[in-house]
Amino acid sequence: MATHLSREDFVRMDEKDILAGCRERFRLPEDIIYLDGNSLGAAPIAIMPTVARTIEQEWSRDLVRSWTAHGWIELPLDVGAAIARFVGARPEDVMVADSTTVNLFRLVCLALAIQKNRRVILVERDNFPADNYVAQGVAELLGGRVEIRAAAGDRLAADVDGDVALVLASQVDFRTGRMLDMSAVTRAVHEQGALILWDLSHSAGVVPIALEADDVDFAVGCGYKYLNGGPGAPSYLYVQRRWQDVARPPFFGWLGHASPFALEPQWQPAAGIRRMLGGTPPILSLVALKAALAAFDDVDLRAVRAKSLSLTSHFIDLVDERCARYGVRVVTPREDERRGSQVSVAFEHAYPAMQALIARGVIGDFRAPDLMRFGFAPLYVRYTDVWDVVAILDEVLSSRAWDRPEFLRRQYVT
Amino acid sequence: MATHLSREDFVRMDEKDILAGCRERFRLPEDIIYLDGNSLGAAPIAIMPTVARTIEQEWSRDLVRSWTAHGWIELPLDVGAAIARFVGARPEDVMVADSTTVNLFRLVCLALAIQKNRRVILVERDNFPADNYVAQGVAELLGGRVEIRAAAGDRLAADVDGDVALVLASQVDFRTGRMLDMSAVTRAVHEQGALILWDLSHSAGVVPIALEADDVDFAVGCGYKYLNGGPGAPSYLYVQRRWQDVARPPFFGWLGHASPFALEPQWQPAAGIRRMLGGTPPILSLVALKAALAAFDDVDLRAVRAKSLSLTSHFIDLVDERCARYGVRVVTPREDERRGSQVSVAFEHAYPAMQALIARGVIGDFRAPDLMRFGFAPLYVRYTDVWDVVAILDEVLSSRAWDRPEFLRRQYVT
Repeated sequence: MATHLSREDFVRMDEKDILAGCRERFRLPEDIIYLDGNSLGAAPIAIMPTVARTIEQEWSRDLVRSWTAHGWIELPLDVGAAIARFVGARPEDVMVADSTTVNLFRLVCLALAIQKNRRVILVERDNFPADNYVAQGVAELLGGRVEIRAAAGDRLAADVDGDVALVLASQVDFRTGRMLDMSAVTRAVHEQGALILWDLSHSAGVVPIALEADDVDFAVGCGYKYLNGGPGAPSYLYVQRRWQDVARPPFFGWLGHASPFALEPQWQPAAGIRRMLGGTPPILSLVALKAALAAFDDVDLRAVRAKSLSLTSHFIDLVDERCARYGVRVVTPREDERRGSQVSVAFEHAYPAMQALIARGVIGDFRAPDLMRFGFAPLYVRYTDVWDVVAILDEVLSSRAWDRPEFLRRQYVT
Repeated sequence: MATHLSREDFVRMDEKDILAGCRERFRLPEDIIYLDGNSLGAAPIAIMPTVARTIEQEWSRDLVRSWTAHGWIELPLDVGAAIARFVGARPEDVMVADSTTVNLFRLVCLALAIQKNRRVILVERDNFPADNYVAQGVAELLGGRVEIRAAAGDRLAADVDGDVALVLASQVDFRTGRMLDMSAVTRAVHEQGALILWDLSHSAGVVPIALEADDVDFAVGCGYKYLNGGPGAPSYLYVQRRWQDVARPPFFGWLGHASPFALEPQWQPAAGIRRMLGGTPPILSLVALKAALAAFDDVDLRAVRAKSLSLTSHFIDLVDERCARYGVRVVTPREDERRGSQVSVAFEHAYPAMQALIARGVIGDFRAPDLMRFGFAPLYVRYTDVWDVVAILDEVLSSRAWDRPEFLRRQYVT
């Protein structure tokens, strides 16, 4: 589809953008267009003073008393409550601690403890591999009690049967940006008596999520993509209230004890989401995540989604119009309801082409075998960025700027 | 034993102390004597500029490229290598990630995977409860395959038999400061064909540890006590080289994959300690820990141990001399080879007495039912602190300053 738009039109879109002012909440280099917030979000300006206060005024001055005096001990639940609005949950159903890997492990084990008479974990075949590794680890640890099956994302609902204990899936596919219908898939899974665990890492902060309304059983997500919590920011975890008190997590964490400070010899679970807590949480990383979330405080998440859809659809249109002739192909769904906040473009020379873009200050990333990924974080990506990136991509492709030896040396990408 | 020493003698000890200059590496309030570094270490000055550089120059400017450009991706192993000297290990046998709880879980499961024909975990009865909770959680998760037995610390070696797969113990007791003979206990455990997992949380940084020379199988420890890595700093984990490649950890972490960036569908373990890695690590907390360790860079750990023993033995002598008459009793072993770097004092009114000390600027802590704990971190605790704290304790006890309603209200302590 030809857009017949000019850069001037994109300048005007920025002028009318009600979220335009949010960009000032981030520290971004002037000479970079950053379209990799789906991997590591940009740095919110509020993080530095928050971390400095935690180190210099709390830890340095009040020392061990800070655990209570500055509320450190409650941060896993406080930050969980702050994440609740992004995932459509009650504040008391979310906690933050540990990595996504550890939280997936917790929830897979919890689900199997609830589903005593079923032994299959059905994973999305193209799910982020790290998620499926966790399921493989649980299966090996529990021996013959667990079997793993895989199904394509659009086959998940159809492939659930009476043997399936748990379905493990991502709302937004990390490769293609394809979004599943969480409500419909969850309903289909429940109809077969199975439970579902959604990974929201590529969706929280940019797409609508309604865990409570959709009756989702479990969810996890990372804090460092669209939530901008910083590299390796702690992960969040959601447990539907009906499952909170019926089983015990695999880690009997001291913070999840009913009386964590009584130092009793036997672990007894706390009530509610609190029992999912583990060991002493990393406070510097937690306060950073909390400060990052504040960048959304006065922001209507529907406006974020609207801008995300507008950015990505304009990007798709411009790539079609200007770059299709070079053999690139947008693989991200064009229907709004099936698209997250990234656009992936297939190209035979995707790896060196992305290197050439990076050399020109456009940061996206590469995913094997042939995808260039571009993530659009509506709080700091501008409409003019969309125009400029496609113009630079056009230049890279038309001049075959990617065809240089230094761009062909594969390094690992995150 | 009467010491017949005066405060002047302690002033002279500080003057002669070769570690005295290390105190400047920490940010400590002027009006506080901090003897709770066994719970949360004081804040090294180097942490703030390090974290600021990570946020402002690395994350903010180089964004996602920092994973490789600034070596973030290798930090779990780099910081592990930096911890190796504190625990007497080869640099390649230690990694840092996640909480102590999660690392204990990893190693208990790994040990059980190695010891296929044994089912008992023998835990130290008075071990830090959080450690034993982890063992209880593993036992529940694995069902009838695992049984937990408990033994007193000095009975551990005697109570190991041919059913025991793993012994779980702390080198230094968190309540009393009693230190076990790691070499002898490890040898006795091995003679019965069992493996041992030591928790070094209360010993690394203050007492000699020789994991490699003592042929220890597994160890964990936290980063936030005597290592000063900050509240909830990541935990370290040691696996003896002979066990690194013979079994698989419970978490199949993407960073522990043989090819973490290949995004293969099946998890394949990396070689060596790397396979123990889990998910994306919390970089801000990791760089803080790394900066904290640098406070020890030019420090001979034997000098640290010598000063620790001197501080604690003077403290014990002064408490005996000046405070025994009030009914307080030192419960920490007086023999150097059985003492860590804390002194615990039993007193009927320990809780309000500690509150009265805190009100006077002396920060120690309380452990139920009747212990006042005083931790001595040789890098920043002075000899005059020892004198002054005992003088203040004497005043608190002689004036019954603890007998005030506001000191009796129990709050939780960490």
